[in-house]
Amino acid sequence: MKKLAVLGLTAALAGISSAALAAPKPFEAIEYRQGIFKAVKWNFGPMGDMMKGKTEFNAEEFKSRADNLAALSKMPLEGFVAGTYSSKTAALPAIEDDWETFAKGMESFQTASAALAEAAKTGDKGEIGPAFMQVAKTCKGCHDQFKD
Amino acid sequence: MKKLAVLGLTAALAGISSAALAAPKPFEAIEYRQGIFKAVKWNFGPMGDMMKGKTEFNAEEFKSRADNLAALSKMPLEGFVAGTYSSKTAALPAIEDDWETFAKGMESFQTASAALAEAAKTGDKGEIGPAFMQVAKTCKGCHDQFKD
Repeated sequence: MKKLAVLGLTAALAGISSAALAAPKPFEAIEYRQGIFKAVKWNFGPMGDMMKGKTEFNAEEFKSRADNLAALSKMPLEGFVAGTYSSKTAALPAIEDDWETFAKGMESFQTASAALAEAAKTGDKGEIGPAFMQVAKTCKGCHDQFKD
Repeated sequence: MKKLAVLGLTAALAGISSAALAAPKPFEAIEYRQGIFKAVKWNFGPMGDMMKGKTEFNAEEFKSRADNLAALSKMPLEGFVAGTYSSKTAALPAIEDDWETFAKGMESFQTASAALAEAAKTGDKGEIGPAFMQVAKTCKGCHDQFKD
């Protein structure tokens, strides 16, 4: 069961006002998380191009994008709220059915992104490479199971 | 003239490969910046509700959202690339015509968001209030002039 749903339920039961009760509309949650992933791709793409040698490696730009990614990686989870897996989304209902695995996957994405931002500080492609691959792996890990 | 455009031109003139040459397609730039602003709203909305007393003030949640906002505030500028002001966007061509003012406005948004994240650390609504209003002012500052 989702953390937000639990929070909402707890708050409702307690009859108190809380931010969790000001629930976003389903389309807002979908647009929010899709927006975050577009920003993830916007940063991850050029980093990938640099790693593959398709574009020149620019340590400063790479570091800035890795910082962005580390910040963004913390954001999408709260957009996966109940009742937002039926239309205009590639997110599968499996997310609701196996929330624990999904949330763990998102945590791996956060951890790997934070590690990449750390590695990027060195400006050393040799150090960055494995950290970058680790992030890519966490993307694929969730997409295989939870994305249409 | 835009920084990215200048970078792209410089790179092209020098005949070198650079990340700036792997230019995004216009729709990608539009979707990227719109995605960021959706995430800004997603975080700013609940913060506003707390400040207005519509929802209970939760210092920890407020701080987390202020941190998100500070990170997000650094991101949209690079999505405002040349040739992306004609369709599927509320961004006005005035951005291209008066890039300097627009970029300064974005800088004010970043500075105010960073200050809000600092104020949020205190957990004191009295300290947070003015910092929050300052961010809201920077939003309005750009929207009035550069958003349809």
